[in-house]
Amino acid sequence: MTVDYPKEFQGFAINDPKDWDHPKLTKFEPKKFDAHDVDIEVECCGICASELFSLKNEWSSEPLLCLSSAYGPKSQVVGHEVVGKVVAVGDKVSLCKVGDRIGLGAQASSCMACPRCHGNNEQYCAKSVGTYCSKYEDGYVSQGGYASHVRAHEQFCFPVPEQIESEYVAPLMCGGLTVYSPIKRSIQGSKEPRVGVIGIGGLGHMAIMISKALGAHVVAFSRSNRKRDDAQKMGADDFVATGEDKDWSQRYMDRFDLILNCASSTSDLDLDSFLTVLRVNKNFVSVGLPEKDDRFNLSPLTFMGNGATVGVSKLGSREEAIELLDLAAKHGFRPWVETIKISESGVHEGLTRLDKGDVRYRFTLVGFHEFFGTGK
Amino acid sequence: MTVDYPKEFQGFAINDPKDWDHPKLTKFEPKKFDAHDVDIEVECCGICASELFSLKNEWSSEPLLCLSSAYGPKSQVVGHEVVGKVVAVGDKVSLCKVGDRIGLGAQASSCMACPRCHGNNEQYCAKSVGTYCSKYEDGYVSQGGYASHVRAHEQFCFPVPEQIESEYVAPLMCGGLTVYSPIKRSIQGSKEPRVGVIGIGGLGHMAIMISKALGAHVVAFSRSNRKRDDAQKMGADDFVATGEDKDWSQRYMDRFDLILNCASSTSDLDLDSFLTVLRVNKNFVSVGLPEKDDRFNLSPLTFMGNGATVGVSKLGSREEAIELLDLAAKHGFRPWVETIKISESGVHEGLTRLDKGDVRYRFTLVGFHEFFGTGK
Repeated sequence: MTVDYPKEFQGFAINDPKDWDHPKLTKFEPKKFDAHDVDIEVECCGICASELFSLKNEWSSEPLLCLSSAYGPKSQVVGHEVVGKVVAVGDKVSLCKVGDRIGLGAQASSCMACPRCHGNNEQYCAKSVGTYCSKYEDGYVSQGGYASHVRAHEQFCFPVPEQIESEYVAPLMCGGLTVYSPIKRSIQGSKEPRVGVIGIGGLGHMAIMISKALGAHVVAFSRSNRKRDDAQKMGADDFVATGEDKDWSQRYMDRFDLILNCASSTSDLDLDSFLTVLRVNKNFVSVGLPEKDDRFNLSPLTFMGNGATVGVSKLGSREEAIELLDLAAKHGFRPWVETIKISESGVHEGLTRLDKGDVRYRFTLVGFHEFFGTGK
Repeated sequence: MTVDYPKEFQGFAINDPKDWDHPKLTKFEPKKFDAHDVDIEVECCGICASELFSLKNEWSSEPLLCLSSAYGPKSQVVGHEVVGKVVAVGDKVSLCKVGDRIGLGAQASSCMACPRCHGNNEQYCAKSVGTYCSKYEDGYVSQGGYASHVRAHEQFCFPVPEQIESEYVAPLMCGGLTVYSPIKRSIQGSKEPRVGVIGIGGLGHMAIMISKALGAHVVAFSRSNRKRDDAQKMGADDFVATGEDKDWSQRYMDRFDLILNCASSTSDLDLDSFLTVLRVNKNFVSVGLPEKDDRFNLSPLTFMGNGATVGVSKLGSREEAIELLDLAAKHGFRPWVETIKISESGVHEGLTRLDKGDVRYRFTLVGFHEFFGTGK
């Protein structure tokens, strides 16, 4: 089905990082409609911390990418935890159909031809295109989900089980998948899986619930005891306030298949302690968004005790996204979500409160149908 | 068989790191003979770079460990690439018998009771005792293989296939095993295994041969072209002079299951390039001995392209040592060894030439029977 509907999308956009917290309602031209593309009428969209980095343009020394694009909008809409209904599909689309409720995360396209795309690692495709702020081969800079509609490759449009309400699906699409993938890969084959989660925030709270649903014993690590009760409600089996319990690592030697760092900085973590509590050849994986100048700084001698490794994981595959949604449907866990109605003031509120850390633990922008006059 | 023979061993020892290059012939009392212990009459012993660090006491801010030990020698014999004949076994020894030719590497004891010891990871046992400079629970500081005899736990005495001459077995016992373990663990399950080896020295040259014997495609990395011919003779399929070929990483994207760093420093490597050429979730592993202040210093963003990891590997298990010896027997590869006859001047020559990097590519001290009057 080749369609030209809709010709223009609407969304909340900026064209200057100084206005990062004041995206304005804007009409914009979508990318060229390809045979594998899907148009999604957005129902709701999560707010992810990476959006603050992108809007503030903190990872780049160049101007906003959209300003230099050969064609397409000269402004930027963000948002990559999208839930919505399929309203149009390209001729070659076979993975979803018009009318389906689907989820879209932080990736909107990949080459679908390389070994990574063929090996359930399309998130690491060298030609991967992010859902926003990312350049397609023709120069178009992708536009995200704080919008009436989003256009994306079918591979990245995941079917949503009917048991889960859309506002809870949204944060699973980027944040949830980002923690699910390294948890699943690290505990696979472990007879007695144990996961440590550093940082009880947007990512960390989902990591606790997902680890539990996958059958792991989970220890939550936070600086203070402030979030102890919350962590236990999320399902953590144990809680360590690292700022108040200097000897914790002695008690946890040789314990973990994975330490998942969901905090946004690695530079000020006690990496030595976190490495020593890993089992042999197991992994410390960061998924928190690093600041630009953030570094791993480690002595090779630190690793000698257990042959542990340090790394970073990025998003997850389609296969993993579908597994995660099934897991949430079957186990009944739900991210802790505060909803905000979309509007210029709603987007402003969500971004500025997230910037201050005033969120327990994830925002989902809702009311898209009402605002954009869609959903009919 | 409980024995009290031999009551005293002889070896080349120092008691001051200032004299690191002049070990003197010394008699010393061995450790208490336990039921699982084996006495080895040494035939030959490799010289490993870690011995320079230990003799110079560079990893420690304390005096030599032997000087503070409650009982045992107040001097230190090094050497942990030992080949010799079993001359006595404890009552409970079942893994070898008197008369066997065995190899002993850098580890002489572990608890044999913890999950690591039960899981083919005894090299990471928290109670591991190194073959020299390492404290047993009773306070005795272990004494190494530049000696007439060595005493060690049977677990660490590996049967040697008759096809391999002892002078070639020696360097496999520490250096060879140290590279074999991460190579084997990293390429397991890979359909088209590819290994990159950084640093064509004592460790690196064995890593090339072992990777080839395990069926991997091997690329050798060195700063200059000086060792290109040698690397090809060792079996490298390709060679990159990183100091002269600035664009090499473009050609090798998504290529390797393992980058094995056999160079002694990580601080001055272009880690970013080496990480980007790994396949998804694959490993950069350092086995070169780090200097005390050496650091991994990396941006988390570097890992985002492939979810790669950075780590360190230590020695290998008994199972892996036996596999390695079988591999060398079957595939016929041999470390490149220069032999030096043991004596005060021979030990001096080996240590000082190794310190200057004047070795292609490994020394084995030989002639122990003649020097010590053993081997009858």
